[in-house]
Amino acid sequence: MNKGLLIVLSGPSGCGKGTLTKGLLDNRDTLKLSVSATTRAMREYEQNGVDYYFYSREEFQKLIDDDEMLEYACYNGQFYGTPKKPVVEWLNKGYDVILEIEVAGAEQVRSRMNTVDIFVLPPSLEELERRLRNRNSESDEQINARLDIAQEEMKQVKCYCYTVINDDVKTAVSALDSILTAEKAKTKHILKQIEDVLRAKD
Amino acid sequence: MNKGLLIVLSGPSGCGKGTLTKGLLDNRDTLKLSVSATTRAMREYEQNGVDYYFYSREEFQKLIDDDEMLEYACYNGQFYGTPKKPVVEWLNKGYDVILEIEVAGAEQVRSRMNTVDIFVLPPSLEELERRLRNRNSESDEQINARLDIAQEEMKQVKCYCYTVINDDVKTAVSALDSILTAEKAKTKHILKQIEDVLRAKD
Repeated sequence: MNKGLLIVLSGPSGCGKGTLTKGLLDNRDTLKLSVSATTRAMREYEQNGVDYYFYSREEFQKLIDDDEMLEYACYNGQFYGTPKKPVVEWLNKGYDVILEIEVAGAEQVRSRMNTVDIFVLPPSLEELERRLRNRNSESDEQINARLDIAQEEMKQVKCYCYTVINDDVKTAVSALDSILTAEKAKTKHILKQIEDVLRAKD
Repeated sequence: MNKGLLIVLSGPSGCGKGTLTKGLLDNRDTLKLSVSATTRAMREYEQNGVDYYFYSREEFQKLIDDDEMLEYACYNGQFYGTPKKPVVEWLNKGYDVILEIEVAGAEQVRSRMNTVDIFVLPPSLEELERRLRNRNSESDEQINARLDIAQEEMKQVKCYCYTVINDDVKTAVSALDSILTAEKAKTKHILKQIEDVLRAKD
Protein backbone atom coordinates (compact mmCIF):
# COMPACT_ATOMS: atom_id res chain seq x y z
CA MET A 1 0.00 0.00 0.00
CA ASN A 2 1.19 3.54 -0.74
CA LYS A 3 1.63 5.95 2.13
CA GLY A 4 -0.87 8.81 2.11
CA LEU A 5 -0.18 12.45 1.35
CA LEU A 6 0.22 15.07 4.05
CA ILE A 7 -1.63 18.17 2.85
CA VAL A 8 -0.89 21.49 4.53
CA LEU A 9 -3.62 24.03 3.78
CA SER A 10 -2.84 27.46 5.12
CA GLY A 11 -3.60 31.11 4.56
CA PRO A 12 -4.67 34.18 6.51
CA SER A 13 -7.72 34.36 8.76
CA GLY A 14 -10.74 35.04 6.53
CA CYS A 15 -9.37 33.35 3.38
CA GLY A 16 -11.94 30.57 3.73
CA LYS A 17 -9.63 27.62 4.38
CA GLY A 18 -12.11 26.02 6.79
CA THR A 19 -14.91 26.02 4.19
CA LEU A 20 -12.59 24.65 1.50
CA THR A 21 -11.34 21.90 3.81
CA LYS A 22 -14.92 20.86 4.54
CA GLY A 23 -15.73 20.79 0.81
CA LEU A 24 -12.68 18.67 0.10
CA LEU A 25 -13.46 16.21 2.92
CA ASP A 26 -16.98 15.75 1.50
CA ASN A 27 -15.44 14.64 -1.82
CA ARG A 28 -12.83 12.18 -0.62
CA ASP A 29 -13.33 9.13 1.60
CA THR A 30 -9.60 8.55 1.94
CA LEU A 31 -8.89 12.02 3.33
CA LYS A 32 -8.70 12.58 7.10
CA LEU A 33 -8.74 15.90 8.92
CA SER A 34 -6.04 16.25 11.54
CA VAL A 35 -7.42 17.09 15.00
CA SER A 36 -5.49 19.73 16.94
CA ALA A 37 -4.51 19.52 20.58
CA THR A 38 -5.00 22.28 23.15
CA THR A 39 -4.54 23.02 26.83
CA ARG A 40 -7.60 25.26 27.03
CA ALA A 41 -10.70 23.98 28.85
CA MET A 42 -13.16 21.82 26.93
CA ARG A 43 -16.44 23.61 26.21
CA GLU A 44 -19.73 21.92 26.90
CA TYR A 45 -20.55 21.13 23.28
CA GLU A 46 -17.06 19.86 22.44
CA GLN A 47 -15.83 16.25 22.28
CA ASN A 48 -12.33 15.12 23.14
CA GLY A 49 -10.65 13.71 20.01
CA VAL A 50 -13.22 15.29 17.68
CA ASP A 51 -13.02 19.06 18.18
CA TYR A 52 -9.64 18.91 19.90
CA TYR A 53 -7.49 16.59 21.91
CA PHE A 54 -7.67 18.18 25.35
CA TYR A 55 -4.47 17.95 27.34
CA SER A 56 -3.16 19.29 30.62
CA ARG A 57 -0.27 21.70 30.41
CA GLU A 58 2.08 18.95 31.65
CA GLU A 59 0.86 16.46 29.04
CA PHE A 60 1.23 19.04 26.27
CA GLN A 61 4.73 19.97 27.41
CA LYS A 62 5.74 16.30 27.48
CA LEU A 63 4.54 15.87 23.85
CA ILE A 64 6.70 18.87 22.86
CA ASP A 65 9.70 17.48 24.75
CA ASP A 66 9.25 14.03 23.16
CA ASP A 67 9.16 15.58 19.65
CA GLU A 68 5.55 14.45 19.32
CA MET A 69 4.20 17.80 18.08
CA LEU A 70 4.37 18.60 14.38
CA GLU A 71 3.81 22.26 15.24
CA TYR A 72 2.56 24.26 18.20
CA ALA A 73 2.01 27.81 19.36
CA CYS A 74 0.75 29.72 22.36
CA TYR A 75 -2.31 32.03 22.07
CA ASN A 76 -3.79 33.89 25.02
CA GLY A 77 -1.75 31.81 27.43
CA GLN A 78 -2.95 28.43 26.07
CA PHE A 79 -1.07 25.94 23.89
CA TYR A 80 -2.43 24.74 20.55
CA GLY A 81 -0.72 22.23 18.28
CA THR A 82 -0.81 19.20 16.00
CA PRO A 83 0.07 15.83 17.58
CA LYS A 84 2.30 13.81 15.28
CA LYS A 85 1.21 10.28 16.20
CA PRO A 86 -2.34 10.15 14.75
CA VAL A 87 -1.15 11.89 11.58
CA VAL A 88 1.69 9.41 11.02
CA GLU A 89 -0.58 6.44 11.78
CA TRP A 90 -3.14 7.59 9.19
CA LEU A 91 -0.43 8.21 6.58
CA ASN A 92 1.02 4.73 7.16
CA LYS A 93 -2.43 3.21 6.68
CA GLY A 94 -2.64 4.93 3.27
CA TYR A 95 -4.99 7.75 4.23
CA ASP A 96 -4.29 11.28 3.08
CA VAL A 97 -4.28 13.75 5.96
CA ILE A 98 -5.08 17.45 5.77
CA LEU A 99 -3.80 20.00 8.26
CA GLU A 100 -5.80 23.22 8.10
CA ILE A 101 -3.51 25.48 10.07
CA GLU A 102 -2.18 28.97 10.62
CA VAL A 103 0.73 30.21 8.53
CA ALA A 104 3.28 30.07 11.37
CA GLY A 105 2.33 26.48 12.23
CA ALA A 106 2.44 25.49 8.57
CA GLU A 107 6.05 26.70 8.43
CA GLN A 108 6.98 24.33 11.25
CA VAL A 109 5.31 21.31 9.61
CA ARG A 110 6.77 22.01 6.19
CA SER A 111 10.28 22.13 7.63
CA ARG A 112 9.82 18.69 9.26
CA MET A 113 7.70 16.54 6.95
CA ASN A 114 7.17 15.91 3.24
CA THR A 115 4.05 17.92 2.55
CA VAL A 116 1.84 19.04 -0.29
CA ASP A 117 1.61 22.68 0.67
CA ILE A 118 -1.21 24.89 -0.52
CA PHE A 119 -1.75 28.54 0.29
CA VAL A 120 -5.28 29.96 0.11
CA LEU A 121 -5.57 33.61 -0.90
CA PRO A 122 -8.68 35.77 -0.82
CA PRO A 123 -9.56 37.29 -4.23
CA SER A 124 -8.45 40.73 -2.93
CA LEU A 125 -7.56 42.56 0.26
CA GLU A 126 -10.88 44.44 0.03
CA GLU A 127 -12.78 41.15 -0.06
CA LEU A 128 -10.76 39.82 2.90
CA GLU A 129 -11.70 42.93 4.89
CA ARG A 130 -15.36 42.53 3.92
CA ARG A 131 -15.35 38.89 5.06
CA LEU A 132 -13.74 39.73 8.39
CA ARG A 133 -16.21 42.60 9.01
CA ASN A 134 -19.17 40.36 8.12
CA ARG A 135 -18.31 38.09 11.02
CA ASN A 136 -19.61 40.95 13.21
CA SER A 137 -17.73 39.63 16.19
CA GLU A 138 -14.79 41.97 16.43
CA SER A 139 -14.04 45.65 16.92
CA ASP A 140 -12.58 47.82 14.16
CA GLU A 141 -9.30 47.73 15.99
CA GLN A 142 -9.25 43.93 16.10
CA ILE A 143 -10.16 43.71 12.42
CA ASN A 144 -7.43 46.16 11.44
CA ALA A 145 -4.95 44.12 13.46
CA ARG A 146 -6.08 40.95 11.66
CA LEU A 147 -5.67 42.66 8.28
CA ASP A 148 -2.13 43.73 9.16
CA ILE A 149 -1.31 40.14 10.20
CA ALA A 150 -2.93 38.80 7.03
CA GLN A 151 -0.78 41.07 4.86
CA GLU A 152 2.34 39.84 6.65
CA GLU A 153 1.27 36.20 6.37
CA MET A 154 0.45 36.50 2.67
CA LYS A 155 4.09 37.36 1.99
CA GLN A 156 4.74 33.64 2.63
CA VAL A 157 2.68 32.55 -0.38
CA LYS A 158 5.70 32.31 -2.67
CA CYS A 159 7.20 29.59 -0.46
CA TYR A 160 4.22 27.33 -1.18
CA CYS A 161 4.09 24.91 -4.09
CA TYR A 162 0.42 25.63 -4.85
CA THR A 163 -1.75 28.72 -4.51
CA VAL A 164 -5.53 28.64 -4.69
CA ILE A 165 -7.34 31.98 -4.97
CA ASN A 166 -10.65 31.50 -3.19
CA ASP A 167 -12.95 33.59 -5.35
CA ASP A 168 -15.64 30.95 -5.81
CA VAL A 169 -15.84 28.08 -3.28
CA LYS A 170 -16.87 25.41 -5.77
CA THR A 171 -14.06 26.27 -8.19
CA ALA A 172 -11.54 26.43 -5.35
CA VAL A 173 -12.60 23.04 -3.92
CA SER A 174 -12.36 21.55 -7.40
CA ALA A 175 -8.82 22.95 -7.77
CA LEU A 176 -7.84 21.43 -4.41
CA ASP A 177 -9.31 18.10 -5.45
CA SER A 178 -7.30 18.19 -8.69
CA ILE A 179 -4.12 18.98 -6.76
CA LEU A 180 -4.64 15.86 -4.61
CA THR A 181 -5.41 13.69 -7.65
CA ALA A 182 -2.34 15.00 -9.47
CA GLU A 183 -0.07 14.50 -6.46
CA LYS A 184 -1.28 10.91 -6.22
CA ALA A 185 -0.35 10.42 -9.90
CA LYS A 186 3.25 11.44 -9.26
CA THR A 187 5.56 8.63 -10.30
CA LYS A 188 7.33 8.65 -6.92
CA HIS A 189 4.03 7.87 -5.13
CA ILE A 190 3.03 4.85 -7.22
CA LEU A 191 6.31 2.98 -7.65
CA LYS A 192 4.73 -0.26 -6.41
CA GLN A 193 1.91 -0.17 -8.97
CA ILE A 194 4.46 0.67 -11.67
CA GLU A 195 6.59 -2.32 -10.64
CA ASP A 196 3.52 -4.53 -10.93
CA VAL A 197 2.89 -3.35 -14.50
CA LEU A 198 6.52 -3.73 -15.54
CA ARG A 199 6.91 -7.22 -14.10
CA ALA A 200 7.17 -9.62 -17.04
CA LYS A 201 4.57 -12.37 -17.07
CA ASP A 202 7.16 -15.15 -17.05
CA MET B 1 -1.13 36.74 -19.26
CA ASN B 2 0.52 33.56 -18.01
CA LYS B 3 2.47 31.44 -20.45
CA GLY B 4 0.87 28.08 -21.18
CA LEU B 5 2.11 24.68 -20.08
CA LEU B 6 4.01 22.34 -22.39
CA ILE B 7 2.65 18.86 -21.75
CA VAL B 8 4.68 15.88 -22.93
CA LEU B 9 2.55 12.73 -23.05
CA SER B 10 4.53 9.64 -23.89
CA GLY B 11 4.51 5.88 -23.46
CA PRO B 12 4.92 2.74 -25.53
CA SER B 13 2.97 1.92 -28.66
CA GLY B 14 -0.39 0.46 -27.56
CA CYS B 15 -0.60 2.29 -24.22
CA GLY B 16 -3.48 4.41 -25.53
CA LYS B 17 -1.85 7.85 -25.48
CA GLY B 18 -3.68 8.89 -28.66
CA THR B 19 -7.11 8.14 -27.17
CA LEU B 20 -6.23 9.91 -23.92
CA THR B 21 -4.98 12.98 -25.78
CA LYS B 22 -8.23 13.16 -27.72
CA GLY B 23 -10.24 12.88 -24.49
CA LEU B 24 -8.21 15.64 -22.88
CA LEU B 25 -8.55 17.96 -25.90
CA ASP B 26 -12.35 17.50 -25.79
CA ASN B 27 -12.33 18.80 -22.17
CA ARG B 28 -10.13 21.87 -22.54
CA ASP B 29 -10.58 24.80 -24.93
CA THR B 30 -7.21 26.25 -24.00
CA LEU B 31 -5.26 23.12 -24.93
CA LYS B 32 -3.67 22.77 -28.37
CA LEU B 33 -2.29 19.62 -29.96
CA SER B 34 1.14 20.03 -31.50
CA VAL B 35 1.28 19.03 -35.17
CA SER B 36 4.33 17.00 -36.21
CA ALA B 37 6.42 17.58 -39.30
CA THR B 38 7.50 14.89 -41.76
CA THR B 39 9.34 14.43 -45.03
CA ARG B 40 7.14 11.54 -46.15
CA ALA B 41 4.65 12.10 -48.98
CA MET B 42 1.24 13.54 -48.10
CA ARG B 43 -1.56 11.00 -48.45
CA GLU B 44 -4.72 11.89 -50.30
CA TYR B 45 -6.89 12.30 -47.19
CA GLU B 46 -4.30 14.35 -45.29
CA GLN B 47 -4.08 18.11 -44.87
CA ASN B 48 -0.88 20.08 -44.55
CA GLY B 49 -0.72 21.74 -41.10
CA VAL B 50 -3.50 19.51 -39.73
CA ASP B 51 -2.26 15.92 -39.96
CA TYR B 52 1.37 16.92 -40.43
CA TYR B 53 3.46 19.77 -41.69
CA PHE B 54 4.84 18.30 -44.92
CA TYR B 55 8.39 19.39 -45.71
CA SER B 56 11.00 18.52 -48.28
CA ARG B 57 14.13 16.85 -46.99
CA GLU B 58 16.05 20.13 -47.50
CA GLU B 59 13.46 22.16 -45.59
CA PHE B 60 13.46 19.64 -42.74
CA GLN B 61 17.26 19.62 -42.57
CA LYS B 62 17.33 23.41 -42.45
CA LEU B 63 14.91 23.39 -39.47
CA ILE B 64 17.23 20.95 -37.67
CA ASP B 65 20.29 23.09 -38.48
CA ASP B 66 18.51 26.25 -37.29
CA ASP B 67 17.61 24.59 -33.98
CA GLU B 68 13.95 24.84 -34.93
CA MET B 69 13.07 21.22 -34.10
CA LEU B 70 12.14 20.34 -30.51
CA GLU B 71 12.79 16.68 -31.37
CA TYR B 72 13.15 14.56 -34.46
CA ALA B 73 13.88 11.03 -35.57
CA CYS B 74 14.21 9.00 -38.74
CA TYR B 75 11.86 6.03 -39.39
CA ASN B 76 11.94 3.99 -42.58
CA GLY B 77 14.14 6.58 -44.24
CA GLN B 78 11.81 9.52 -43.53
CA PHE B 79 12.18 12.30 -40.96
CA TYR B 80 9.52 13.02 -38.33
CA GLY B 81 9.72 15.77 -35.72
CA THR B 82 8.14 18.60 -33.75
CA PRO B 83 8.68 22.13 -35.08
CA LYS B 84 9.44 24.54 -32.25
CA LYS B 85 7.93 27.73 -33.65
CA PRO B 86 4.16 26.95 -33.50
CA VAL B 87 4.58 25.42 -30.04
CA VAL B 88 6.38 28.47 -28.65
CA GLU B 89 3.88 30.85 -30.27
CA TRP B 90 0.93 29.03 -28.67
CA LEU B 91 2.66 28.95 -25.26
CA ASN B 92 3.35 32.68 -25.47
CA LYS B 93 -0.31 33.33 -26.26
CA GLY B 94 -1.26 31.49 -23.06
CA TYR B 95 -2.41 28.23 -24.63
CA ASP B 96 -1.31 24.91 -23.16
CA VAL B 97 0.27 22.64 -25.76
CA ILE B 98 0.33 18.85 -25.69
CA LEU B 99 2.95 16.79 -27.48
CA GLU B 100 1.84 13.18 -27.88
CA ILE B 101 5.14 11.59 -28.85
CA GLU B 102 7.38 8.55 -28.77
CA VAL B 103 9.59 7.95 -25.75
CA ALA B 104 12.84 8.82 -27.56
CA GLY B 105 11.42 12.12 -28.84
CA ALA B 106 10.04 12.94 -25.42
CA GLU B 107 13.56 12.61 -23.99
CA GLN B 108 14.79 15.26 -26.43
CA VAL B 109 12.00 17.73 -25.61
CA ARG B 110 12.32 17.25 -21.85
CA SER B 111 16.03 18.02 -22.01
CA ARG B 112 15.37 21.31 -23.84
CA MET B 113 12.15 22.81 -22.49
CA ASN B 114 10.26 23.16 -19.21
CA THR B 115 7.66 20.44 -19.55
CA VAL B 116 4.96 18.70 -17.57
CA ASP B 117 5.94 15.15 -18.40
CA ILE B 118 3.48 12.31 -18.14
CA PHE B 119 4.14 8.65 -18.93
CA VAL B 120 1.21 6.45 -19.89
CA LEU B 121 1.46 2.78 -18.89
CA PRO B 122 -0.84 -0.06 -19.93
CA PRO B 123 -2.42 -1.87 -16.95
CA SER B 124 -0.18 -4.89 -17.64
CA LEU B 125 2.15 -6.34 -20.27
CA GLU B 126 -0.50 -8.95 -21.09
CA GLU B 127 -3.04 -6.22 -21.80
CA LEU B 128 -0.51 -4.34 -23.94
CA GLU B 129 0.06 -7.48 -25.99
CA ARG B 130 -3.70 -8.02 -26.35
CA ARG B 131 -4.17 -4.43 -27.58
CA LEU B 132 -1.38 -4.73 -30.12
CA ARG B 133 -2.73 -8.07 -31.40
CA ASN B 134 -6.26 -6.65 -31.67
CA ARG B 135 -5.01 -4.12 -34.20
CA ASN B 136 -4.76 -7.10 -36.56
CA SER B 137 -2.39 -5.24 -38.79
CA GLU B 138 0.94 -6.84 -37.93
CA SER B 139 2.67 -10.20 -37.97
CA ASP B 140 3.56 -12.07 -34.77
CA GLU B 141 7.16 -11.14 -35.38
CA GLN B 142 6.33 -7.43 -35.66
CA ILE B 143 4.19 -7.58 -32.51
CA ASN B 144 6.93 -9.33 -30.56
CA ALA B 145 9.41 -6.70 -31.70
CA ARG B 146 6.98 -3.96 -30.53
CA LEU B 147 6.64 -5.66 -27.15
CA ASP B 148 10.41 -5.81 -26.73
CA ILE B 149 10.68 -2.11 -27.59
CA ALA B 150 7.78 -1.32 -25.22
CA GLN B 151 9.53 -3.08 -22.34
CA GLU B 152 12.70 -1.11 -23.02
CA GLU B 153 10.76 2.18 -23.28
CA MET B 154 8.84 1.54 -20.08
CA LYS B 155 12.11 1.54 -18.15
CA GLN B 156 12.06 5.33 -18.69
CA VAL B 157 8.89 5.79 -16.63
CA LYS B 158 10.80 6.63 -13.45
CA CYS B 159 12.28 9.72 -15.12
CA TYR B 160 8.79 11.18 -15.57
CA CYS B 161 7.10 13.38 -12.98
CA TYR B 162 3.67 11.79 -13.49
CA THR B 163 2.55 8.28 -14.40
CA VAL B 164 -0.97 7.46 -15.53
CA ILE B 165 -1.92 3.77 -15.74
CA ASN B 166 -4.45 3.53 -18.57
CA ASP B 167 -6.78 0.85 -17.22
CA ASP B 168 -10.01 2.78 -17.82
CA VAL B 169 -10.00 5.62 -20.39
CA LYS B 170 -12.43 7.85 -18.50
CA THR B 171 -10.47 7.58 -15.24
CA ALA B 172 -7.19 8.15 -17.05
CA VAL B 173 -8.47 11.26 -18.90
CA SER B 174 -9.78 12.60 -15.61
CA ALA B 175 -6.36 12.07 -14.00
CA LEU B 176 -4.69 13.92 -16.89
CA ASP B 177 -7.17 16.75 -16.56
CA SER B 178 -6.42 17.01 -12.82
CA ILE B 179 -2.69 17.08 -13.53
CA LEU B 180 -3.17 20.07 -15.85
CA THR B 181 -5.42 21.87 -13.35
CA ALA B 182 -2.92 21.25 -10.54
CA GLU B 183 0.05 22.40 -12.61
CA LYS B 184 -1.83 25.61 -13.40
CA ALA B 185 -2.35 26.14 -9.64
CA LYS B 186 1.39 26.03 -8.97
CA THR B 187 2.47 29.26 -7.33
CA LYS B 188 5.23 29.80 -9.91
CA HIS B 189 2.65 29.86 -12.73
CA ILE B 190 0.33 32.48 -11.23
CA LEU B 191 2.72 35.04 -9.81
CA LYS B 192 0.92 37.86 -11.64
CA GLN B 193 -2.49 36.99 -10.19
CA ILE B 194 -0.88 36.67 -6.75
CA GLU B 195 0.70 40.12 -7.11
CA ASP B 196 -2.74 41.53 -7.99
CA VAL B 197 -4.23 40.08 -4.80
CA LEU B 198 -1.37 41.26 -2.60
CA ARG B 199 -1.37 44.81 -3.95
CA ALA B 200 -2.71 47.06 -1.21
CA LYS B 201 -5.73 49.13 -2.19
CA ASP B 202 -4.03 52.45 -1.47
